[in-house]
Amino acid sequence: MTKLAILGAGRMAQVHATALIDANIGVAAIFDINRPASEALAKKLQADVAASAREAVSRKDVDGVLIVTSNDTHMENILLATNANKPVMCEKPLAATLQETLACVDALGAAATKVFLAFNRRFDVNHMALKAAINKGEIGDIEQIVITSRDPCPPPLESIKSSGGLFYEMMIHDLDMARWLLGEEFIRLNANGAALVDPAVGKMGDVDTATVSMEAASGRQVVIINSRRASYGYDQRIEVFGSKGMAISQNPRKSSLVRYSQSLSGNPDGLYDFYLDRYADSYRTELLCFVKHVQEGSDMPVNALDGLRAACLADAAKNSSVENRSIKLDTNGMEVTIS
Amino acid sequence: MTKLAILGAGRMAQVHATALIDANIGVAAIFDINRPASEALAKKLQADVAASAREAVSRKDVDGVLIVTSNDTHMENILLATNANKPVMCEKPLAATLQETLACVDALGAAATKVFLAFNRRFDVNHMALKAAINKGEIGDIEQIVITSRDPCPPPLESIKSSGGLFYEMMIHDLDMARWLLGEEFIRLNANGAALVDPAVGKMGDVDTATVSMEAASGRQVVIINSRRASYGYDQRIEVFGSKGMAISQNPRKSSLVRYSQSLSGNPDGLYDFYLDRYADSYRTELLCFVKHVQEGSDMPVNALDGLRAACLADAAKNSSVENRSIKLDTNGMEVTIS
Amino acid sequence: MTKLAILGAGRMAQVHATALIDANIGVAAIFDINRPASEALAKKLQADVAASAREAVSRKDVDGVLIVTSNDTHMENILLATNANKPVMCEKPLAATLQETLACVDALGAAATKVFLAFNRRFDVNHMALKAAINKGEIGDIEQIVITSRDPCPPPLESIKSSGGLFYEMMIHDLDMARWLLGEEFIRLNANGAALVDPAVGKMGDVDTATVSMEAASGRQVVIINSRRASYGYDQRIEVFGSKGMAISQNPRKSSLVRYSQSLSGNPDGLYDFYLDRYADSYRTELLCFVKHVQEGSDMPVNALDGLRAACLADAAKNSSVENRSIKLDTNGMEVTIS
Amino acid sequence: MTKLAILGAGRMAQVHATALIDANIGVAAIFDINRPASEALAKKLQADVAASAREAVSRKDVDGVLIVTSNDTHMENILLATNANKPVMCEKPLAATLQETLACVDALGAAATKVFLAFNRRFDVNHMALKAAINKGEIGDIEQIVITSRDPCPPPLESIKSSGGLFYEMMIHDLDMARWLLGEEFIRLNANGAALVDPAVGKMGDVDTATVSMEAASGRQVVIINSRRASYGYDQRIEVFGSKGMAISQNPRKSSLVRYSQSLSGNPDGLYDFYLDRYADSYRTELLCFVKHVQEGSDMPVNALDGLRAACLADAAKNSSVENRSIKLDTNGMEVTIS
Repeated sequence: MTKLAILGAGRMAQVHATALIDANIGVAAIFDINRPASEALAKKLQADVAASAREAVSRKDVDGVLIVTSNDTHMENILLATNANKPVMCEKPLAATLQETLACVDALGAAATKVFLAFNRRFDVNHMALKAAINKGEIGDIEQIVITSRDPCPPPLESIKSSGGLFYEMMIHDLDMARWLLGEEFIRLNANGAALVDPAVGKMGDVDTATVSMEAASGRQVVIINSRRASYGYDQRIEVFGSKGMAISQNPRKSSLVRYSQSLSGNPDGLYDFYLDRYADSYRTELLCFVKHVQEGSDMPVNALDGLRAACLADAAKNSSVENRSIKLDTNGMEVTIS
Repeated sequence: MTKLAILGAGRMAQVHATALIDANIGVAAIFDINRPASEALAKKLQADVAASAREAVSRKDVDGVLIVTSNDTHMENILLATNANKPVMCEKPLAATLQETLACVDALGAAATKVFLAFNRRFDVNHMALKAAINKGEIGDIEQIVITSRDPCPPPLESIKSSGGLFYEMMIHDLDMARWLLGEEFIRLNANGAALVDPAVGKMGDVDTATVSMEAASGRQVVIINSRRASYGYDQRIEVFGSKGMAISQNPRKSSLVRYSQSLSGNPDGLYDFYLDRYADSYRTELLCFVKHVQEGSDMPVNALDGLRAACLADAAKNSSVENRSIKLDTNGMEVTIS
Repeated sequence: MTKLAILGAGRMAQVHATALIDANIGVAAIFDINRPASEALAKKLQADVAASAREAVSRKDVDGVLIVTSNDTHMENILLATNANKPVMCEKPLAATLQETLACVDALGAAATKVFLAFNRRFDVNHMALKAAINKGEIGDIEQIVITSRDPCPPPLESIKSSGGLFYEMMIHDLDMARWLLGEEFIRLNANGAALVDPAVGKMGDVDTATVSMEAASGRQVVIINSRRASYGYDQRIEVFGSKGMAISQNPRKSSLVRYSQSLSGNPDGLYDFYLDRYADSYRTELLCFVKHVQEGSDMPVNALDGLRAACLADAAKNSSVENRSIKLDTNGMEVTIS
Repeated sequence: MTKLAILGAGRMAQVHATALIDANIGVAAIFDINRPASEALAKKLQADVAASAREAVSRKDVDGVLIVTSNDTHMENILLATNANKPVMCEKPLAATLQETLACVDALGAAATKVFLAFNRRFDVNHMALKAAINKGEIGDIEQIVITSRDPCPPPLESIKSSGGLFYEMMIHDLDMARWLLGEEFIRLNANGAALVDPAVGKMGDVDTATVSMEAASGRQVVIINSRRASYGYDQRIEVFGSKGMAISQNPRKSSLVRYSQSLSGNPDGLYDFYLDRYADSYRTELLCFVKHVQEGSDMPVNALDGLRAACLADAAKNSSVENRSIKLDTNGMEVTIS
């Protein structure tokens, strides 16, 4: 039986715990600096409480490590695990800035592809159906991708500093989607950003409304549309257009109820309000994907290098938005100095 | 902590087990005539294996009993539990014929309302949203209900004898939906039935295609449309029409993908193929509803009397279909002799 | 150039006039008892004003006759035209009761198939797409048809006497749709009717809410659901279910706008409020179909015999509703005396 | 009775003729260099054939002029009409390049606002419903607009030279939509263009696949997505997102038919294949709007200055695409020299 160590016993650990029990995946040890949280989770999972993260990842009966600690400990915990030769699944992001992300990838070296980076949207049933349609050739050659991604409401103002802002924390998901679906890197990027929802966000140097357009070497185009506040709930759609047709991963709805009345005439039930509800299944699916790769010993399908690429694009987007210019990218995803 | 006994360790027990773990509901004892199945489930649920159904339901630490055994043992197990003064949740049906159902309800007496009958569709998120819309007055006074219910493919021919046929086994869900949504009993029923999918079904005295129309004392009308074979998957929609508008519980889809191509132009992803997928959430919700009522000690919101009423209607539908006549019902749901 | 005579210069004449001009179909003569209305329409159509209906239909340059006069003159005008050996297009119904309809068909004799009866829904683009899908075999063998037909609001109470009531005036469209789509006559019919919208309708012996279920000799089933008042506009959907799939002619909408807001989340724009808007295109299409058959000299695809069949079913539906019984029909569509 | 002169008797003249007859709007004179075409149209409209465009526009009984001649004669004919003090409705564009457009507006002077420029999409029922929703405040403050506009198939290669290419001929509609819906001019524009559909287009210096992102002074963002070939038909959607919600003008469909089968499960009927079908109603509506303003003697709601503004944006888009840079615009919509 495959067994994991879990670092962190908070909300995301709870989310993953149910999936582990349901799939009969064992947990050998749990560590969290909050001891009672560790103990409660350990009881539910029939696991041991470890005295330290190092102890948890080093156990012989541990085949892989699940990191769901706070973002500032990701890098340290990842390196603990990879140094113990254990495959890792880590919540995104690797780090909060491009510089730190580069440092992390440098430190990982060849182990970078053994770190499963939890870009959970790759495992959403709707986006996966879209990817499958592409792979089956239903859409033909991809020509344009339009990614709309709007959150129900902005995060607390104080979180902006630590999160890295809209481009690093929120759009990074969409930048990863763009790379995953297109299967090609970008050579040019232009961003527009504004603080239309809350001027206070602008004063902190961040934006809450952004559009990014990107061009690949082949000429194929991607547009990303972001907002921090959609009054009607999570709005996350992806449209892929190609030579043979188009497929759209539409917003799923809370129910399939459709209403008709004198004033409304035909409104289906609303969109989700909370990301854990909207993406509930994707967390289970990504976890099972990680465990499968642990069992096979193979490279992770979404790993630290993907994290780095997405961070490069987020960095370019931020710069383009601030400096009002189109940015040219080299083959490493870095800005070409003479633009 | 509320603790249950589970009788039966088969597929439905597995479905319920995950929900119990996730909701931190304890299981004290499990009994199944298949000992290894009992043991595997007991290990997962950290429960004891009981030597008999009687032992399981009689334990002092058991607050309620979950019956997921084969249909022919429902009545016996229900009576075991109610005699031990334990609230019961039992998979539908109470029994396979109207006569046996009447016998079961007689034997239960006052305990009939303590038996939670698992008409799981009442707990489907879409149908619940419909019921909520009715209760909020969105639809005004109900005037017509149209229930469409089609399975992906017919059951094995040999199952027809034990199941009681389309009206008892399949339409009984829709008859329960009709009563639940309308909140009124019926005074007249007419059924048409045919074996259009498979003539062999007709030779066994059953039908695979049926429509039923019912009239309540108030004049309000319900139509039920059934088929045993829908090539496109589970087709289960409910439309409620009233003085202020209409609401439809539409079919949920496997994903929110929408396709556009030269030949297809706009087809969303398909419907579900398997009832455990289509109604996955409803099983969890009904189980939690049962446990809540166990904790409160209150009457079950859907109980043995609901099972009896639905069986009366199924019986009338079968007779109307076979005898080509409209049937008049009395206030007990039984046929008025002189129609 | 094909030329028509038009009897009647009211609203429906106006509707048809635009289509005639647009399609370059000539009009030789117009007659209406309202002389100024005749003159205005004649000017627009560059036609003569006739002194009588007889004069108009008898002109040598008239190839066909369009009857858009009041219902009580339909029979007389039809016979005028057919006696002059001219093909006729007449607004439905032939007559307001089954008896008068039988008399009209008797009087017509072999000419019955030369009378184009304007069941305009057969020419609705959506219903035609449905019929085309059936004809192409997309649905396989038809097994069930569900026709929902609800008007936005009831007609004036005083019109009930002359119109023949819901079954004759409103449901007759749906009964025709049922015959047209199924391609088979019915052997059994059951109706439920009630005055749920307005009790005054019930006092006049009519209903405003009705469901009818019908069975063909093959066992195939049709359900019709009618209401005189849908608060959300014209609700006219047809669902055809068969061995290979299902197709639904859904309600068209006033626009393709879809809204998302905090309260509504996703309501497309509303349904039509007026039948001339809802069925605008069908009037044009049926007229052109009539003219094509005039030019070819062929039998009309929807003719007086179709009017008779639909009237027979309307009569049975009324009787079933009033007498609370299922009605058996013979091969002529008439009630079998011993039911 | 208001009377028009019509210059041109080709396809667009035919489209408008039916609407004029139906609305009882008179036509005094018609001129086309093709004399038989003039005569046929004149007969249908009960109008005179003029010997020259000058004669047609100069008649005393002409209240307004409708120009549907070839693009290269637009400017000349517009000036003929405005010099005769007649309000004009002219098919878009005013001219094929920004320079000529500037010249035309200069020559018009104050009469520029009396020239109705036929940006027919402003009169599409779906886009008008979107504009109405904005005006009613349903969407709150607009923050982002996404305009998708894809044609079924590319125009003939030879037409590219005269048309001015994708930005001038096709995207100009979307640029006008952006200005109309947002109600604010733009200060920054970035374009990506490629010849992904047909490399031959690229060799002629044009593109067939383009995305443009624009920023207004307020920070509000607009994205336009264009392609010359959508295998599934006309794809023209507009999404407006704001502080209170979102509304989308979705693609209308050829019919409301929805299909369910083993392979397709739920595809509604397809999109339109031809712009005259897709926008049929908008041509009628714009014409009636023009006549209403002729009768009122008021400025035209969409006029030559709108044509100029859209041409400025098309020019900037072309330059941005070719030169791979973001372009800054001044308050006249012209490029700021030092970008």
